[in-house]
Amino acid sequence: MGVDEALTALADLPFRDLGDAKVDRHRALRQGFPEVVFAPGKTPRQLARIAEVIRGDGQPLLVTRLAAEQLPALKDVKGGSYEAVARLFHAGRASPRRGAAVAVITAGTSDVPVAEEAAWTAWVAGCEVERHYDVGVAGLQRLLVRRPRLERSRALVVVAGMEGALASVVGGLSSRPVIAVPTSVGYGVNLGGLTALLGMLNSCAPNVAAVNIDNGFGAGYLAAMIARRQS
Amino acid sequence: MGVDEALTALADLPFRDLGDAKVDRHRALRQGFPEVVFAPGKTPRQLARIAEVIRGDGQPLLVTRLAAEQLPALKDVKGGSYEAVARLFHAGRASPRRGAAVAVITAGTSDVPVAEEAAWTAWVAGCEVERHYDVGVAGLQRLLVRRPRLERSRALVVVAGMEGALASVVGGLSSRPVIAVPTSVGYGVNLGGLTALLGMLNSCAPNVAAVNIDNGFGAGYLAAMIARRQS
Amino acid sequence: MGVDEALTALADLPFRDLGDAKVDRHRALRQGFPEVVFAPGKTPRQLARIAEVIRGDGQPLLVTRLAAEQLPALKDVKGGSYEAVARLFHAGRASPRRGAAVAVITAGTSDVPVAEEAAWTAWVAGCEVERHYDVGVAGLQRLLVRRPRLERSRALVVVAGMEGALASVVGGLSSRPVIAVPTSVGYGVNLGGLTALLGMLNSCAPNVAAVNIDNGFGAGYLAAMIARRQS
Amino acid sequence: MGVDEALTALADLPFRDLGDAKVDRHRALRQGFPEVVFAPGKTPRQLARIAEVIRGDGQPLLVTRLAAEQLPALKDVKGGSYEAVARLFHAGRASPRRGAAVAVITAGTSDVPVAEEAAWTAWVAGCEVERHYDVGVAGLQRLLVRRPRLERSRALVVVAGMEGALASVVGGLSSRPVIAVPTSVGYGVNLGGLTALLGMLNSCAPNVAAVNIDNGFGAGYLAAMIARRQS
Amino acid sequence: MGVDEALTALADLPFRDLGDAKVDRHRALRQGFPEVVFAPGKTPRQLARIAEVIRGDGQPLLVTRLAAEQLPALKDVKGGSYEAVARLFHAGRASPRRGAAVAVITAGTSDVPVAEEAAWTAWVAGCEVERHYDVGVAGLQRLLVRRPRLERSRALVVVAGMEGALASVVGGLSSRPVIAVPTSVGYGVNLGGLTALLGMLNSCAPNVAAVNIDNGFGAGYLAAMIARRQS
Amino acid sequence: MGVDEALTALADLPFRDLGDAKVDRHRALRQGFPEVVFAPGKTPRQLARIAEVIRGDGQPLLVTRLAAEQLPALKDVKGGSYEAVARLFHAGRASPRRGAAVAVITAGTSDVPVAEEAAWTAWVAGCEVERHYDVGVAGLQRLLVRRPRLERSRALVVVAGMEGALASVVGGLSSRPVIAVPTSVGYGVNLGGLTALLGMLNSCAPNVAAVNIDNGFGAGYLAAMIARRQS
Amino acid sequence: MGVDEALTALADLPFRDLGDAKVDRHRALRQGFPEVVFAPGKTPRQLARIAEVIRGDGQPLLVTRLAAEQLPALKDVKGGSYEAVARLFHAGRASPRRGAAVAVITAGTSDVPVAEEAAWTAWVAGCEVERHYDVGVAGLQRLLVRRPRLERSRALVVVAGMEGALASVVGGLSSRPVIAVPTSVGYGVNLGGLTALLGMLNSCAPNVAAVNIDNGFGAGYLAAMIARRQS
Amino acid sequence: MGVDEALTALADLPFRDLGDAKVDRHRALRQGFPEVVFAPGKTPRQLARIAEVIRGDGQPLLVTRLAAEQLPALKDVKGGSYEAVARLFHAGRASPRRGAAVAVITAGTSDVPVAEEAAWTAWVAGCEVERHYDVGVAGLQRLLVRRPRLERSRALVVVAGMEGALASVVGGLSSRPVIAVPTSVGYGVNLGGLTALLGMLNSCAPNVAAVNIDNGFGAGYLAAMIARRQS
Repeated sequence: MGVDEALTALADLPFRDLGDAKVDRHRALRQGFPEVVFAPGKTPRQLARIAEVIRGDGQPLLVTRLAAEQLPALKDVKGGSYEAVARLFHAGRASPRRGAAVAVITAGTSDVPVAEEAAWTAWVAGCEVERHYDVGVAGLQRLLVRRPRLERSRALVVVAGMEGALASVVGGLSSRPVIAVPTSVGYGVNLGGLTALLGMLNSCAPNVAAVNIDNGFGAGYLAAMIARRQS
Repeated sequence: MGVDEALTALADLPFRDLGDAKVDRHRALRQGFPEVVFAPGKTPRQLARIAEVIRGDGQPLLVTRLAAEQLPALKDVKGGSYEAVARLFHAGRASPRRGAAVAVITAGTSDVPVAEEAAWTAWVAGCEVERHYDVGVAGLQRLLVRRPRLERSRALVVVAGMEGALASVVGGLSSRPVIAVPTSVGYGVNLGGLTALLGMLNSCAPNVAAVNIDNGFGAGYLAAMIARRQS
Repeated sequence: MGVDEALTALADLPFRDLGDAKVDRHRALRQGFPEVVFAPGKTPRQLARIAEVIRGDGQPLLVTRLAAEQLPALKDVKGGSYEAVARLFHAGRASPRRGAAVAVITAGTSDVPVAEEAAWTAWVAGCEVERHYDVGVAGLQRLLVRRPRLERSRALVVVAGMEGALASVVGGLSSRPVIAVPTSVGYGVNLGGLTALLGMLNSCAPNVAAVNIDNGFGAGYLAAMIARRQS
Repeated sequence: MGVDEALTALADLPFRDLGDAKVDRHRALRQGFPEVVFAPGKTPRQLARIAEVIRGDGQPLLVTRLAAEQLPALKDVKGGSYEAVARLFHAGRASPRRGAAVAVITAGTSDVPVAEEAAWTAWVAGCEVERHYDVGVAGLQRLLVRRPRLERSRALVVVAGMEGALASVVGGLSSRPVIAVPTSVGYGVNLGGLTALLGMLNSCAPNVAAVNIDNGFGAGYLAAMIARRQS
Repeated sequence: MGVDEALTALADLPFRDLGDAKVDRHRALRQGFPEVVFAPGKTPRQLARIAEVIRGDGQPLLVTRLAAEQLPALKDVKGGSYEAVARLFHAGRASPRRGAAVAVITAGTSDVPVAEEAAWTAWVAGCEVERHYDVGVAGLQRLLVRRPRLERSRALVVVAGMEGALASVVGGLSSRPVIAVPTSVGYGVNLGGLTALLGMLNSCAPNVAAVNIDNGFGAGYLAAMIARRQS
Repeated sequence: MGVDEALTALADLPFRDLGDAKVDRHRALRQGFPEVVFAPGKTPRQLARIAEVIRGDGQPLLVTRLAAEQLPALKDVKGGSYEAVARLFHAGRASPRRGAAVAVITAGTSDVPVAEEAAWTAWVAGCEVERHYDVGVAGLQRLLVRRPRLERSRALVVVAGMEGALASVVGGLSSRPVIAVPTSVGYGVNLGGLTALLGMLNSCAPNVAAVNIDNGFGAGYLAAMIARRQS
Repeated sequence: MGVDEALTALADLPFRDLGDAKVDRHRALRQGFPEVVFAPGKTPRQLARIAEVIRGDGQPLLVTRLAAEQLPALKDVKGGSYEAVARLFHAGRASPRRGAAVAVITAGTSDVPVAEEAAWTAWVAGCEVERHYDVGVAGLQRLLVRRPRLERSRALVVVAGMEGALASVVGGLSSRPVIAVPTSVGYGVNLGGLTALLGMLNSCAPNVAAVNIDNGFGAGYLAAMIARRQS
Repeated sequence: MGVDEALTALADLPFRDLGDAKVDRHRALRQGFPEVVFAPGKTPRQLARIAEVIRGDGQPLLVTRLAAEQLPALKDVKGGSYEAVARLFHAGRASPRRGAAVAVITAGTSDVPVAEEAAWTAWVAGCEVERHYDVGVAGLQRLLVRRPRLERSRALVVVAGMEGALASVVGGLSSRPVIAVPTSVGYGVNLGGLTALLGMLNSCAPNVAAVNIDNGFGAGYLAAMIARRQS
């Protein structure tokens, strides 16, 4: 295959130009899911028009990090709902795929908002989601009792702040890919989540990869991609 | 299910105690692959005995970061071979699984040793591996021409130093999970690979997760786990 | 030429002493553009008097990072206007120079304010400005379609947050000098823009240099200086 | 009690002036153990003379971080022995104290040298020492099986590199004070041990405090002080 | 003892599942003190229910970092009181243990809130507490006059910001274990307490270990554990 | 001279114990200037009582970083005045010393508040102060014209943010000791003043030493100590 | 212009596939200069074959960071020469362009190797180069005497370690674009060149942009691109 | 005084141009001491010629950080001597000034080389020097006994690694300016001396300023400048 043909294939990837924003309409084809909207810094008008383009294409809409005061911008979106803890708006959902299960696990109660972002993202992407919250390593029995249930999912999202040790422990106990999400939960030399991130990247369990601090969306998206096992 | 039963299940996880080292014999059951040996800091005697236990169990042996001068310690391992570029020793291989293909992609020529560690790890774990080397973003056409072939793999490992931009570009072009490996290739404020790592963690493509700097093994392991699609 | 003559030349560089502030009146001669005013921390009275000195010399006035509430201080400046997105006030403009074109490119929508600061600075400095916004690497086709137009400018300003990969990709596609501006857009280990900056400094494209985080002004200024091709 | 009396008490703390080095002879009284000698940067003559002063006072001698080539400097010390793995020289021992038991635990095999420094220090300080090596969190069963034995010690030293998660897990399982020692074992963003240290300082278990990277001596010393329960 | 028995022992560690929160009821057995509640990020309902479970078990309740506006959530707790400087709520107390004395020492006046958190924690854990505040190294006589009194305690908590030098000085003067708490007091390159922490970790006195920045609770808890000398 | 006599001398250093605060009354003897009060974190009552003790001893009072809302606490101090730009309160002044002149120099207008703190501190400590503001290196002639006047002072305080280059330039032009004060003025990778500090510490001029970021007080104090040339 | 045409243009950018290395043959068209070879990590065979491809295309060859021991790999390149101070090999040169002059300026003698890399790169790219070495800010007269000559160049490369202040001073004195190269010259908190880099990025002169530490090549390349003023 | 006259004064500052090096001949006039030579990176020929120029002007010669193998380059310098511990070469000395005494104090034995660099620098600059070595804070009595002698010097240089606490303690005990030199002595989170530096910059004693890590020369130079009390 030559350069010309390769490039021609790229030509199948048009987008909608809204001026300051350009909606990537064929990302659904390319990545199995439409472009997701990151709300911070977008004006109400930008949010409304992007939502219109995506829903107009019949695609599921997912808006992350949406502040409550930005919500009115999406009032014209039909069938949408806002998950306040996850700060996430969604309308429509990818067709559920049989067996595509994802588990979301947190070390503590304060990690729940990030976990909910991951959980809802995976759900919108067509997965079943099982939640295991507040099972951190200071009381191992809380995790051990749930260990057999973890194996029922195809991908695990582990959400933890402070030292982030839960990712290593879950990685060591499970045969599933673990997407680790460090959170900014903690104080002092948690360094805003950097300590948890560094811990996860140094995990002694080899089935662990990490995403950015508080990036529940990315972890949920990647876990869903793994769990769906597309062709 | 109660705490007792959960714990009883854990009791199925014995190990072999060699004093300073304890070989986790049932990791193959728990994680689908036996314990992998990290060579630095191990004495010849420790290496030899650990290899003996693993091979004695009929499991594939994988030793990473093995310096050439440590190689004699493994001279009694039957059917083993040493990959010099990857600095990795292997004997035996997990049974290949149909369709379990992994692609390993590098930005430059200097990233190849880390990529080879990933590629051999995935191969020992029973995957087919396709290599695409020196296709960094300064000459995009080198990557674009290979784009259709990327989709044939179930998981992509992207290995890049300097600014690590290749992970984002590949992530944006592909519908597959991307495991990004930053390398220490570069100088000055590459900060020994930290810059590439930070770039990968901030990727604007949502299907990217990262492992530690130069951790080709971890990326190959996780990509193989994804590609094998165990039950 | 001896030390004496060298120093005598420096004597051609007087300034206006306003007490706490000293306006460099001959910077226009020395650098081809008058002193630009950085608004933060200046009192209304200081702003007003500096503006008076510069406009009194018949020079164009450019005030950056001007908060909306500081605007009244400049109410006596004739013919001035305030660009709200760029947070920049200007009055007068350097004489436009034929062919002096600058392109300003952003990765995302959130990078626009910094880009506008660059664009207006280059315009006040006498350049034509072309804007290409929201063309980041997660959807490469948005950039590729605009590639030929980039060559029409003499200098490119690339504005990007998160991993800053756009600078490398643009640098690889174009034969023009690229001034890269990292932005603080992102979260977690974007480290307030440091990650984008580090990525740009490690660019695998050799025609890229970087300025400080969010420094749209500096990039616009330097790009204009390159595009004007003074004598 | 007035300032004068307080200061007079301090006057009971003389020292031996050897020029560039000043041996604190009464530290044994003040801290329950004589001054310990840190070998790096000391000349053979300095080592010999300091050893002479301490042994001349009838005190136990402990020299840490002693390179093999510095060993001849101590050839005149009677009854001394050199622990090569721990890089530590000792002669004499504090009188053993009944019940003063310390446990030293490592995550991996590579952590053993630091652990041995801790173990020998505690032994010279008159404690019994129990060693539990290579029981890291990737194979939890190795630790769980030893849990009841940990309670027999009065203080635990946990030595771990990489992400340092073992300190939190041990802290959560035990009712004993845990002195955590991060090691420089690992690579990439282990940051020379900083990641393990940060993890330990952010431990979700409240009975954990940390010492400097690779500081086996300090941990052994402090654990011994706790275990001896001096009046 | 085999793996099975070890695990059975763990089965004695149940917990109360409140959904997002799981209260570790047997931590009192395992660690000699019930689970302590970290208030930030907890809802009033979560706080109330956790308090109810702990007090219902007849255990002392300790809630740290409780903002004044969260206080109403605990209005049903009988016999509780709120220490405003320490931002800590407590109800009940572990049975005092004879001789279990802890001293809390600060460098400056601004370190007092963190010191009070340590002091109240130790008190709730059944210790006597002696306070020595504002005795930093810039005026050494303030500390020297109190030196003999320090020896009456079994563990010392040293709380200091800025350069954190007090920990080393106290460590050098005393024969007791020193738990050092860096505080975020200071400005500029105090780096939010990191400088004090680094100083404490590099202490030239070997009887010093450190906890996280501003972690008065952890230091008080660990000091109490040392001072109680359990079995 | 023996240990006893040395300690007896220390006994001449009493202090006034106000509970949480301990005023070092003899610091005037020891250091030539009474204890200076750092206002942040002190209660009105603490401020008032400390001021009372110092003024009661007939010493000059200097309170730094005093917020406007803390000012009422000092309403009973006779003859005091508040310098709003410097956020500093003073009452009384050390006896002026002939020839004790200090120059305070800033790079920009925004550095003035820190410079004023230095200037007033030096004045209260009995020095004459000369101010040279906004003479940064982007317009060198502003500094060069003042060069001969710099030599009239015995110590120079250079206050600069951003890259802090002014300290090196002044150091190279003058034969006087330079105390450099980095300020937090700037944005992006000024890193809150860290960049200016690092630049000053790496100065190629050997007569430069630095104090903490924004520490105008410390620089003024040290410059005054140098300029007074006490016996 | 549509996506198809844009992509077709990209198809004009073939490359030569050497397996692990892929030589971008048309970079000369795209960027006005052929691909430059970064020697570290390349095998002799890779170096030889890449050189052969580039010279075979009749393009100038530039190999940077070439260790002396790698030199034999290029023995078959006709008309090549090795600049030992710059550690750079070149053969052929872009056609010189009238008026394309670049000045390279260093703060100290130790910065010369990096400066030579910049100077030779600019020369191979067809520029005239003027060198001004050891004119750092501690002795300003050395620079001031050369100021008029700086204006004769179209772009300035400033090479400085330690605090990097020279970039700001040159930027303030000249009307030309300044490409600043921080060097790793210095010790302690020069942080391997990071301090100089940070200083340059915070320059108070607006005509300064920076490249990576010790990246003489990149600065020379970009300065040449500016000085050549292509179409 | 006008700009012209100011600049004319600068013209009194010629230098000797040796090509890559430019010796600042009149620094002696400007700063009271000739240019000091930093040896690293200088060739034997450069060292020899610079030495020749300085000695030819009848000025004292001081060469710092001179490796033993560079010594032959200075074999023609008459009356020179090499201080091996300080790695410093000197020939000639500034005329001693009555009362110009400097004290150099170290925390430990390993800090002595840096201290010797400071001590010899101050001596060559015409000061008397008193040395107090190994008097760190872990054994305070070693310092207290020497306190009265410290007051006899006009400036104190405090040299300390690890946590650098000695600077604060000396600052608190003395009425003299303290120039603090952090050293790279230590390991782990001493961070190559950064921790000591940060501690010194955060000193709670206001008479402390710091220089770069291991910069004994700078501290000795500045202390001498203070102690000489020029006009």
